[in-house]
Amino acid sequence: MWPDTRLCELLGIEHPVIQAPMAGTTTPAMVAAVSNAGGLGSHGCATLSPEKLAEDMEALAGATNRSVNLNFFCHEPQEISEDHHAALIEAMRPHYEAAGAPLPDEMPAPSFQPFRQAQLDCLLARPPAVVSFHFGLPEDAAVRALKDKGCKILSSATTVAEARWLAERGVDAIIAQGWESGGHRGLFLELENDAQVGLFSLLPQVVDAVDVPVIAAGGIADGRGIAAAFALGAAGVQIGTAFITADEAHRKPHHPEAVGLGTDESTRVTRAGSGRPARAHRTPWIDAMAQVDAAPFPLMYHYSRPLLAADGPAHQFSLYGQSAALAPSGNAGERLTALVAAAMAAMGR
Amino acid sequence: MWPDTRLCELLGIEHPVIQAPMAGTTTPAMVAAVSNAGGLGSHGCATLSPEKLAEDMEALAGATNRSVNLNFFCHEPQEISEDHHAALIEAMRPHYEAAGAPLPDEMPAPSFQPFRQAQLDCLLARPPAVVSFHFGLPEDAAVRALKDKGCKILSSATTVAEARWLAERGVDAIIAQGWESGGHRGLFLELENDAQVGLFSLLPQVVDAVDVPVIAAGGIADGRGIAAAFALGAAGVQIGTAFITADEAHRKPHHPEAVGLGTDESTRVTRAGSGRPARAHRTPWIDAMAQVDAAPFPLMYHYSRPLLAADGPAHQFSLYGQSAALAPSGNAGERLTALVAAAMAAMGR
Repeated sequence: MWPDTRLCELLGIEHPVIQAPMAGTTTPAMVAAVSNAGGLGSHGCATLSPEKLAEDMEALAGATNRSVNLNFFCHEPQEISEDHHAALIEAMRPHYEAAGAPLPDEMPAPSFQPFRQAQLDCLLARPPAVVSFHFGLPEDAAVRALKDKGCKILSSATTVAEARWLAERGVDAIIAQGWESGGHRGLFLELENDAQVGLFSLLPQVVDAVDVPVIAAGGIADGRGIAAAFALGAAGVQIGTAFITADEAHRKPHHPEAVGLGTDESTRVTRAGSGRPARAHRTPWIDAMAQVDAAPFPLMYHYSRPLLAADGPAHQFSLYGQSAALAPSGNAGERLTALVAAAMAAMGR
Repeated sequence: MWPDTRLCELLGIEHPVIQAPMAGTTTPAMVAAVSNAGGLGSHGCATLSPEKLAEDMEALAGATNRSVNLNFFCHEPQEISEDHHAALIEAMRPHYEAAGAPLPDEMPAPSFQPFRQAQLDCLLARPPAVVSFHFGLPEDAAVRALKDKGCKILSSATTVAEARWLAERGVDAIIAQGWESGGHRGLFLELENDAQVGLFSLLPQVVDAVDVPVIAAGGIADGRGIAAAFALGAAGVQIGTAFITADEAHRKPHHPEAVGLGTDESTRVTRAGSGRPARAHRTPWIDAMAQVDAAPFPLMYHYSRPLLAADGPAHQFSLYGQSAALAPSGNAGERLTALVAAAMAAMGR
């Protein structure tokens, strides 16, 4: 049925189509629906407390007995200098004044932490079939402990160099994340240089560089994109934007409207929301922030969230990719099934 | 043989593979070799005088009786203010001092002009099978005159909106130029906003938006890329980087080395060379120029060329795309033949 079945065999899934983890958008119901339809549902767990993580894992266990993927962030927490803080407050002041909201002028407290022991303990107690990471990998011991429990490990590469780095550290498959992709760019080797490689270039060069299966991500939202990814050597695809507005998703009020209006040129990559480059709906505020040196991830949320909460659509931070206009409709399981059927048709199978 | 033969029929070619016009790199020998091998050779004529254009057309007529494509630029000439000039000279001063070269501190003279009557007269006197434009289209009367002589008209779109604009003005086919592409971005509707759409997203959305055949460009340099482009709905492909180092190309001394060392992340889009966004080999000078407001195209050459001519590899301006590492070798005809064979293999035909 599929031209390449390595990923299906590796992850124990029927279709090599992964619904991307999207922290704040995915729900256990959404993830289970995708897995029950034969794909791999992924839950974005980066911002969950250990208690909420355990609760969601319990909900997932009750909703599907198929493979699921839990995703975590491996950013290095950083601090912000008082000078940088002061400069940011000045840069944000006109936007806060326009929104009539109080400036967050205290120094930021540490925000959510990268993958750590409490989360690892949750996973080891009830190992999911797949654990994926964004922004690199946790320490080797954590990767080994998960693999010893039978978890398959995935992570994202935005360059060939990142793919090689991940392969050397034993990941089971690599997600080649193209420039088209919505949400946070997974880059981790050179934070100051987002290489911005389009999927047409990135995917075959990653396939040539590593021996593990490569999963294509970024700009894929219909059967044509899935067929093209396989033509370029992918063993599977990861699709996010096409699932954001699924019925089971956690719907931020501004999000469906932004994604529903999304065109090829309605997004841009910005550090204004979180501090790390992320593809988001283009707004006047995001355009204005292009000249501002953002706080390190995730401290920038301290400066952006009160503004986003206070103001209307002009200030929203809606993450999605360049192919929103191609997405199917319906609930998450229907979308997975529609994508698979369209891929089969596109591949003439 | 090919899954879509519309472009072959439209342009009178055997294989729907276009060697991209690359002003300053293509030669009549190179163009004829590609056309004689069954593809569409394209000559970058934007910077040629009418006399040199006529001479090259004569050489082409003697070297092939197959379809060839002649390419021109449709930029709007702009002026630069004295303040902007002064600011640029100050920004360039340290680079010129480091290179030991005299600053070009006189105001720039008008540089090469967009497509105009003298070039149109050349084409009407000996109409080529195909005429393509970059940065939009010339005035309607010129397009009509060429079409009346049987020329097929192509132009590039970097967004769906640009593709619709071109289709409404009667082009015969549209080149969807993805972000991965080397050289000048063809954008023309919003010069201040390069939408930077990756080919995975751009191509299917352009295919959905227009009725004419769509040619995929950007990041395609092997059989896998050609197969993927057809999977996304393309009727053909345009390939530049894979031909830059062909034996028949006009070889700038720095160019083969840059392209030969090219990786997925060795380029960036810059206005430093010409004034318009172009994907080029990343150098310390190009990185430094990211914060500098360039002169309008093509006046920026006045500020960049003396530096490039004076200094070593650190200051070169080598244009190529994100898939240089995938390119075949040999002369231009051999490369076309290798690309076709690889595409057939990738498509299982």
